[in-house]
Amino acid sequence: MEYGVGMLGYGFMGKVHTLAYRSIPIYYDPAPLKVRLVGVATAHRDTVEKAVAAGYEFTTTDWRELLAREDIQIINCCTPNNLHREMLVEAIRAGKHIYCDKPLARTLAEAEEIVAAARQGGKKYQMAFQYRFLPATLRAKQMIQEGFVGQVFHFRACYLHAGYVDPKRPMSWRLDKEVSGGGVLLDLGSHIIDLVRHLLGEFAELCAMTETFIKERPSPTGMKPVEVDDYVAIQVKLRSGGTGIIESSRFATGSQDDLRFEIHGSKGALRFSLMDPNWLYAYSMADPDEPYGGTRGYRQIECVQRYPKPSVLPGPKLSVGWMRGHIHSLYDFLTHVADGSETSPSFEDGLAVQRIMERTYESARSRSWVAV
Amino acid sequence: MEYGVGMLGYGFMGKVHTLAYRSIPIYYDPAPLKVRLVGVATAHRDTVEKAVAAGYEFTTTDWRELLAREDIQIINCCTPNNLHREMLVEAIRAGKHIYCDKPLARTLAEAEEIVAAARQGGKKYQMAFQYRFLPATLRAKQMIQEGFVGQVFHFRACYLHAGYVDPKRPMSWRLDKEVSGGGVLLDLGSHIIDLVRHLLGEFAELCAMTETFIKERPSPTGMKPVEVDDYVAIQVKLRSGGTGIIESSRFATGSQDDLRFEIHGSKGALRFSLMDPNWLYAYSMADPDEPYGGTRGYRQIECVQRYPKPSVLPGPKLSVGWMRGHIHSLYDFLTHVADGSETSPSFEDGLAVQRIMERTYESARSRSWVAV
Amino acid sequence: MEYGVGMLGYGFMGKVHTLAYRSIPIYYDPAPLKVRLVGVATAHRDTVEKAVAAGYEFTTTDWRELLAREDIQIINCCTPNNLHREMLVEAIRAGKHIYCDKPLARTLAEAEEIVAAARQGGKKYQMAFQYRFLPATLRAKQMIQEGFVGQVFHFRACYLHAGYVDPKRPMSWRLDKEVSGGGVLLDLGSHIIDLVRHLLGEFAELCAMTETFIKERPSPTGMKPVEVDDYVAIQVKLRSGGTGIIESSRFATGSQDDLRFEIHGSKGALRFSLMDPNWLYAYSMADPDEPYGGTRGYRQIECVQRYPKPSVLPGPKLSVGWMRGHIHSLYDFLTHVADGSETSPSFEDGLAVQRIMERTYESARSRSWVAV
Amino acid sequence: MEYGVGMLGYGFMGKVHTLAYRSIPIYYDPAPLKVRLVGVATAHRDTVEKAVAAGYEFTTTDWRELLAREDIQIINCCTPNNLHREMLVEAIRAGKHIYCDKPLARTLAEAEEIVAAARQGGKKYQMAFQYRFLPATLRAKQMIQEGFVGQVFHFRACYLHAGYVDPKRPMSWRLDKEVSGGGVLLDLGSHIIDLVRHLLGEFAELCAMTETFIKERPSPTGMKPVEVDDYVAIQVKLRSGGTGIIESSRFATGSQDDLRFEIHGSKGALRFSLMDPNWLYAYSMADPDEPYGGTRGYRQIECVQRYPKPSVLPGPKLSVGWMRGHIHSLYDFLTHVADGSETSPSFEDGLAVQRIMERTYESARSRSWVAV
Repeated sequence: MEYGVGMLGYGFMGKVHTLAYRSIPIYYDPAPLKVRLVGVATAHRDTVEKAVAAGYEFTTTDWRELLAREDIQIINCCTPNNLHREMLVEAIRAGKHIYCDKPLARTLAEAEEIVAAARQGGKKYQMAFQYRFLPATLRAKQMIQEGFVGQVFHFRACYLHAGYVDPKRPMSWRLDKEVSGGGVLLDLGSHIIDLVRHLLGEFAELCAMTETFIKERPSPTGMKPVEVDDYVAIQVKLRSGGTGIIESSRFATGSQDDLRFEIHGSKGALRFSLMDPNWLYAYSMADPDEPYGGTRGYRQIECVQRYPKPSVLPGPKLSVGWMRGHIHSLYDFLTHVADGSETSPSFEDGLAVQRIMERTYESARSRSWVAV
Repeated sequence: MEYGVGMLGYGFMGKVHTLAYRSIPIYYDPAPLKVRLVGVATAHRDTVEKAVAAGYEFTTTDWRELLAREDIQIINCCTPNNLHREMLVEAIRAGKHIYCDKPLARTLAEAEEIVAAARQGGKKYQMAFQYRFLPATLRAKQMIQEGFVGQVFHFRACYLHAGYVDPKRPMSWRLDKEVSGGGVLLDLGSHIIDLVRHLLGEFAELCAMTETFIKERPSPTGMKPVEVDDYVAIQVKLRSGGTGIIESSRFATGSQDDLRFEIHGSKGALRFSLMDPNWLYAYSMADPDEPYGGTRGYRQIECVQRYPKPSVLPGPKLSVGWMRGHIHSLYDFLTHVADGSETSPSFEDGLAVQRIMERTYESARSRSWVAV
Repeated sequence: MEYGVGMLGYGFMGKVHTLAYRSIPIYYDPAPLKVRLVGVATAHRDTVEKAVAAGYEFTTTDWRELLAREDIQIINCCTPNNLHREMLVEAIRAGKHIYCDKPLARTLAEAEEIVAAARQGGKKYQMAFQYRFLPATLRAKQMIQEGFVGQVFHFRACYLHAGYVDPKRPMSWRLDKEVSGGGVLLDLGSHIIDLVRHLLGEFAELCAMTETFIKERPSPTGMKPVEVDDYVAIQVKLRSGGTGIIESSRFATGSQDDLRFEIHGSKGALRFSLMDPNWLYAYSMADPDEPYGGTRGYRQIECVQRYPKPSVLPGPKLSVGWMRGHIHSLYDFLTHVADGSETSPSFEDGLAVQRIMERTYESARSRSWVAV
Repeated sequence: MEYGVGMLGYGFMGKVHTLAYRSIPIYYDPAPLKVRLVGVATAHRDTVEKAVAAGYEFTTTDWRELLAREDIQIINCCTPNNLHREMLVEAIRAGKHIYCDKPLARTLAEAEEIVAAARQGGKKYQMAFQYRFLPATLRAKQMIQEGFVGQVFHFRACYLHAGYVDPKRPMSWRLDKEVSGGGVLLDLGSHIIDLVRHLLGEFAELCAMTETFIKERPSPTGMKPVEVDDYVAIQVKLRSGGTGIIESSRFATGSQDDLRFEIHGSKGALRFSLMDPNWLYAYSMADPDEPYGGTRGYRQIECVQRYPKPSVLPGPKLSVGWMRGHIHSLYDFLTHVADGSETSPSFEDGLAVQRIMERTYESARSRSWVAV
């Protein structure tokens, strides 16, 4: 059977997902299922030609048209956050499998509505938290599950870039609270919160602060106030007893695409940086530690392109870049579609992240600790 | 006009080139030209299905069939080295544009024959020396041309992996001199020699040593002698007066895909490593150097995905991996096909690298300095 | 004139200060003043011989004996925290110059008493916050003062080691609240708080959490409860409007002596790590940032041994280690003693750090934001 | 018994050795022997005062005066290379223990004369090849001896700085062949050759090239020709069958004090850099290497200050700098003086290095491979 794909939105993320679809038949052998790029729903006329060049059979300005088609079984949701709730709920009701860019929604209430629908739907729903799907982060998860870290003492994690430092950068949908639902927390924070929760388990409580460094920005109709966060820092207590710090910023001068974590536990430590993505740094207390003659120290585990079979391309010793996580994330989703297994990160995971984000804003507003 | 592509060989490199073709319409806007994946010539029946899944219209076991077709204008040569001469000469005569995996041939004589044909052909011929096409190496070339390094004093460059350390790794075409024409020198050495020559100019003379650490390896018909080099080191004197060292090894325990260079000149220095590919490290003597208060030091220039327009995807701040160089290298070739401009690296460059490799073997054999 | 030195305490820190005294006449030319190692007050009989081997003329078990001597002008205070208040107040009253290991005291009240005395004293009083005195941190201060960073958006800073991970590590004075006044916050936290305040200015308010991972530890008289913190995290709002995070831990598995900071501002960024102490990493928004052709990126400023004159030894290009900061810190103190200039970090700085630490404990106890 | 020290020469290296003497009683407990700084022989009047400030009892312009004194048992030789032969031979004949800065002499003939005398002397003679005495290099030696690396395939090693890039840097004794005996090879090359030979064993043959980039330099009497090497590269075949490359340069723009080695063997690999001296990077083929789930990768072994007992100061987790190697090297020498054990690196080692250097010049001159 061939699965038809309908793409909701064809901005940056729509193109990224499309590239992932086009890469999978070559990267994986066998591919999990056969895909046909059917249609793109886009409100922007200038993207129509690009979508066709990328292999789609048609484009439409009416996203419901994609849901109505019987030859589309899979919907990718790559629209701004304010459109997620309606599109996702309807796509679920239309019986589609869905792969959704993060965050799940603008608010906890919206996310709950989506998940309520999903619990009724019988198809596969997965979040594009693609940083779970780099060889190094997959390996980190595996090692934590195997007990490598032991009892987690504390961690620090962040996701930083510097894209908004320039005060002349104009307003855009990500800066418009009505459209985005929030600032850096929803944009980058959702990723690092998902990754921490994925690796270390549920949050018990948190205490956060947010900052907006540039209070207004130019728009075609003059200066407009910025109502979303440029920076967020969260103190976290995990249910496991561990504790730590999460930061996210679009004002981290000098950072490119800087997702990092460091975890310190009773048996070992792990460290990762997205700008050095080919390695997972792992420290084991089990290594011998004589005063003179030990071999204890961080090990730069060669993750490179080491995916489990049936990854074929590129070879295991070659370097990964940012796109690689997206390709494997979508591959993972298609595998669940093909074999009926449970998705992870599911929409339930998307909801859990949304809850943490909502609690983060509550804490920052109330300047107090908040239970998750 | 649509350009039809015929792929000679569908092993690892054939798949890599195919992935690059499939990625270009999304990575670049506009794409340099419209491509149609027409046919694959492969001797291996098990790759047929994969080629079709990747989008090719047909496969054949007769490579001449691709040359005969009028709807194929571009030939990608991804076969073992011993097939290059005949295929390339015939493809040139058939009036095809050609993108050829390195090295150009097994020997200098073969390479000269290919280039003699190419000088008669009127189409575009380009080598897949893709390490020229990472943002960091493109930037290095640009900076050297702008005079950043000044007079080159000396350099060190290497391309290392550890793929052949295991003595049980069996014989294969790369280890069979009849098929490959040589060992690590032709395999990895060709890349680093091209890059050094590209960045620093022509070689005047060289003095080399080669080693074969594992003298025989298993094959289906018993142990067979290994007649090719596992390791090569070359002392180089450049025509510019600079000097340096090139190394290549498939026995560099601990290395993954480790191409590095460091260049020290009168005005500055440059450093790059393929395992940390997002940055070019640059040191300028023009930076102030007071005993206390200067700012001199290596700068980690953020190359990341910073290609000149019209690169679209992924965004400029996202990390590159190994595939990215291949995609931009093929994009560059297609640009030359589309606009008629000169290719670089051309088959003449392939020939120049082949001459250096032949002189390297001569020097290692004669244990003496050899003019290039 | 020759200055006599009296050393209060001859544990680890007493030896470090002594080594610094012995190094200064060779590292600096000219040395700021001539020093004579006169006496050591130590309660431990086994250190007496070591002190004499190190060049002291006598040892005593009565610390007041040092204060009474007219040939001792300088007192180094290297005793456990609970002894600071009395010793410092009396040394001030005895008219001695004082160089004091951090923290100034156990509590804010004790620190205030010491500083009240110091305000009456006419001599030089300096804290051993020696991390201010590495070439890289001196350079960071200088660059911030010159405006390199611009408006500070946010920062992260930490001081981590893993020395207490082993639950069998017994009780010691640092773990005994009565003696130490607190845990990792007073031990390591005082250093990083001083450094952040030194570089970025006064704290406006903070919100902290502390953890004690191992609740009891062995002692000669059986298991004893640990009442001090193993880990602390502090969210900070600076008076300047910047914000950030400070962490300190003795449970950071995998860390050796890991003091780090990263500062992101409107004009640039700075980064430092004590385990890579020879460089200050600096990012300038003033560097050109064309999409293709810029040179923006972190610069690894070569600090190495670059002290202002009259440092002589080791040469400016040689690597520093941990001891080097202590030597320059003490040199700086002796310079102030010699020329009568203001000390920095002064006891007032020690008091400011003590206030921040006290507020940190208050915040952790009350689980709320606290004004500093 | 107390050992009196006589220092020949009080330039940079004389001060370094003096600092080491002054540090040992505090760094080590117990110190190997009791030392008294007796006298300095120096031709420069301006160093006299410095030597006295550093604790010496007297200075003289007549170096023989030191040899004649009965209260001097140890001679440190820190004079320019052209004075070594005579001073060392006479110091041996005077029955002194000797600690000699590298290289042993200007030429192989001189070195042989010195060693001939030493073979008659009954005292301890040791070279200051101090890079053997960092925790990371001590650990490398230990691991190689334990078989960690297995059969050595190939290595690269270098010692680089950029101190002579400026063409206005005037002539000095290191650039004067009559005084120094050679250029960068004797200055920096001697260290890295010693280290390679120490770690990997004897050299069988070599092929070298040298370059002098700045052919003349200013002197008080006008421009003078530079007759020594600025750069040297050596291809080496080891007696063990391994091979590799050694480079040394004073024209390595961007380098501070950059001694590095990388060793690739059948069982593992080792890597070290003097600008990151706290760690030894070690890769073991014995670590599990499943396609997915292995832990293979370079391990950053925490060497830091981990010396065998009885090192006391600084603590084992604190960072080392350049001075630390000197201190432990001299400590090692004093230990041999104290207990009568064999020195290493001995003058015989100094001779072996001198032979390799002489062969290097022969090879560069004759442009051919030369047996060692």
